[in-house]
Amino acid sequence: MTISVRHLKSHAGETVTVRGWLSNKRRSGKIGFLQIRDGSGIVQVVVSRAEVSEEAWEDVKRVTQESTVRVTGIARADERAPGGVEIQATDFAVRSLTEDYPITNKEHGTAFLMEHRHLWLRSSKQRSTLAIRSEVCQAIRDFFYEREFTLVDSPILTPTSCEGTSTLFETEYFGDKAYLSQSGQLYLEPACAAFGKVYCMGPTFRAEKSKTRRHLTEFWMVEPEVAFLDFEGLIRLAEDFIGFLAGRVIERAATHLEVLERDVSKLEKITGSFPRVTYYEAIEILQSHGIDIAQGDDFGAEDETVLANHFDRPVFVTHFPTDLKAFYMQPDADNPDTVLAMDLLAPEGYGEIIGGSQRIHDHDLLLERLKHHELPIEPFQWYLDVRKYGSFPHSGFGMGIERFIAWMSGAAHLRETIPYPRMLYKIYP
Amino acid sequence: MTISVRHLKSHAGETVTVRGWLSNKRRSGKIGFLQIRDGSGIVQVVVSRAEVSEEAWEDVKRVTQESTVRVTGIARADERAPGGVEIQATDFAVRSLTEDYPITNKEHGTAFLMEHRHLWLRSSKQRSTLAIRSEVCQAIRDFFYEREFTLVDSPILTPTSCEGTSTLFETEYFGDKAYLSQSGQLYLEPACAAFGKVYCMGPTFRAEKSKTRRHLTEFWMVEPEVAFLDFEGLIRLAEDFIGFLAGRVIERAATHLEVLERDVSKLEKITGSFPRVTYYEAIEILQSHGIDIAQGDDFGAEDETVLANHFDRPVFVTHFPTDLKAFYMQPDADNPDTVLAMDLLAPEGYGEIIGGSQRIHDHDLLLERLKHHELPIEPFQWYLDVRKYGSFPHSGFGMGIERFIAWMSGAAHLRETIPYPRMLYKIYP
Repeated sequence: MTISVRHLKSHAGETVTVRGWLSNKRRSGKIGFLQIRDGSGIVQVVVSRAEVSEEAWEDVKRVTQESTVRVTGIARADERAPGGVEIQATDFAVRSLTEDYPITNKEHGTAFLMEHRHLWLRSSKQRSTLAIRSEVCQAIRDFFYEREFTLVDSPILTPTSCEGTSTLFETEYFGDKAYLSQSGQLYLEPACAAFGKVYCMGPTFRAEKSKTRRHLTEFWMVEPEVAFLDFEGLIRLAEDFIGFLAGRVIERAATHLEVLERDVSKLEKITGSFPRVTYYEAIEILQSHGIDIAQGDDFGAEDETVLANHFDRPVFVTHFPTDLKAFYMQPDADNPDTVLAMDLLAPEGYGEIIGGSQRIHDHDLLLERLKHHELPIEPFQWYLDVRKYGSFPHSGFGMGIERFIAWMSGAAHLRETIPYPRMLYKIYP
Repeated sequence: MTISVRHLKSHAGETVTVRGWLSNKRRSGKIGFLQIRDGSGIVQVVVSRAEVSEEAWEDVKRVTQESTVRVTGIARADERAPGGVEIQATDFAVRSLTEDYPITNKEHGTAFLMEHRHLWLRSSKQRSTLAIRSEVCQAIRDFFYEREFTLVDSPILTPTSCEGTSTLFETEYFGDKAYLSQSGQLYLEPACAAFGKVYCMGPTFRAEKSKTRRHLTEFWMVEPEVAFLDFEGLIRLAEDFIGFLAGRVIERAATHLEVLERDVSKLEKITGSFPRVTYYEAIEILQSHGIDIAQGDDFGAEDETVLANHFDRPVFVTHFPTDLKAFYMQPDADNPDTVLAMDLLAPEGYGEIIGGSQRIHDHDLLLERLKHHELPIEPFQWYLDVRKYGSFPHSGFGMGIERFIAWMSGAAHLRETIPYPRMLYKIYP
């Protein structure tokens, strides 16, 4: 019976068959030690020349890295083995012999690995990073499903944009122009009046000519939006969310964190309430660290790192000056020059993970803000309608999935957190 | 305490507060009956003039459809009420008065409703259809998560396409051309060698000038791909999948099926194994129904309906002539002019729900098929690599989410199965 490597342990003592690919082999006289990967895990297979056929032994001799193989044998519990089990082979066969596999155990440059992304996926650190991605994505969906949010997929093809067209991918749409979405928020807000609590999660696009480790042109974003939720409630939702996700990664992706040599003690701190500072306090903290920044300046990536490291935990920065933030954010009643916006900054240099705000729910104020930002009114008419027909206070945030996964997995570059990264000039394979 | 309408029943006898929007009202002398919707459900609120303040009663008189309201009162169990509970109000207030709400209880044309999609979402049938969508999407993810598939998000921006550029949306990509993806399959196959069992689920694009009830230009697709899975296993996976999803909808979306007046007995038949016919048998069945079709012809939408209705259940059509199908499909060993491909056709006119196949795993055969289809080799080199380095038999399928949701919910047109439909010439809001 073919068994997933992941489940071998519960078949100890039984005869099992595993199909997969050779990761590594070592021969010592009449015994071969084969590391076989099947996508669910890696198992060590011990083949003794005396216990298999002549053909099987020939295959042990000729098998190469990444050849497709099939092994049958007895699963034996062994606490020293990874996964707690190894296989004593009774049969072994190469099903497809691999020659000249491009990615070997020696060091390869990133450009080379990126050109071979379709094969690089098989390498252990890539597998573990993307397994964490898979777990995080399911955890996100479970979080919102369990809390009775309705999934409202926002459109990718959109007729307008909030923030100008300079970073937008454009396409022709039956004679008109359309742009690839940068956020689903505007589409979620009307859906709040139908479902109360909604979220979207999908690909998002930014045609930015940035070539940093924190930029992808195509990335995934999750955005919840909640009717009748105030700013305080929004911050608590974000805390619950991040704590839940980190807990799931620690609990269910432990073997992958180990492969990546991630310091789990750092992740264990991501729980409970996070410290909060206002924008003004944040600037003072940065100044106290000797950074040349003034009240009213926007944060750079470096500033975010200093701030989060100052607390050694994720930190909320709140109450930003109105001019630094988007047109739709609700002014703070106590200080109308600031908005009820928050950024959640991660420690260890992972920067802004979440950005959110309470939204303006007063029709005339939103209209005034659109005009102040010199945005056209007509394309936003439907968005204004949310304030015209049964307006309601509401709040939401957005989180870039890849940044969160980089933080969890300890990845130095976002390109490893998505199966097929798209970056400046980089769209192959 | 603010309670979701969905949870009112477990607060019977308690004083509760509900925030939401007025769906409907009726007054009978000194008693008002208000239907209030909060996104999680609808509850009837009874307001007696004698039991509320003068202001509250004035608000009962002036409140209009889609006004934002807040009500406090005693939750009372009442088996006749929808949801089994109603509220006897002690306080009521209009928070935002709505005037001239465009969508009233009278009939509106579809063009008008589509122009107001951001408001149409609030209507009961739209809410129920999209709630089913939300449930289906989570069920899909749960199905694959529970079966230990790894989520491998395939890219949207791609450098090439399998099937020519005539139905592709094109965008400039830093001086090059890129196309919006029509399938993640090619990207999943290499990932099989890393994870064994993978799936992707995301938006897909087709710039087709079709204006039928079965076409969207932007739709969501789910695609599993499994290493070492043969054609028989693929069919069983598809059966399990569809049966699981239908079961979840019946179990967890019952109230929405009721709103939509869906004949649940039709959905209850979607379980166990489905009938199978080969393409050749299918043509004969169509001919026996008097349809003018010959061996070698492709099916039209009408033919699919006749076939599925013939069985009154979903039916697999298998073993298509090679020329009717894509280049990457595995020939049938017993009959090399046919491929190991299957379409799952739904009854009631919902047509093709799933299309899948075993993939060619022989490098030279795939190369030959590429040449036969006059496709360029160089852009497919990475795809050929999957057969070069540790090749393995594998199979997968794709399912259009909106078609499945239309089937479940009984929707006549795909446009109601996605929050913000994109169709020919239609991209607002």
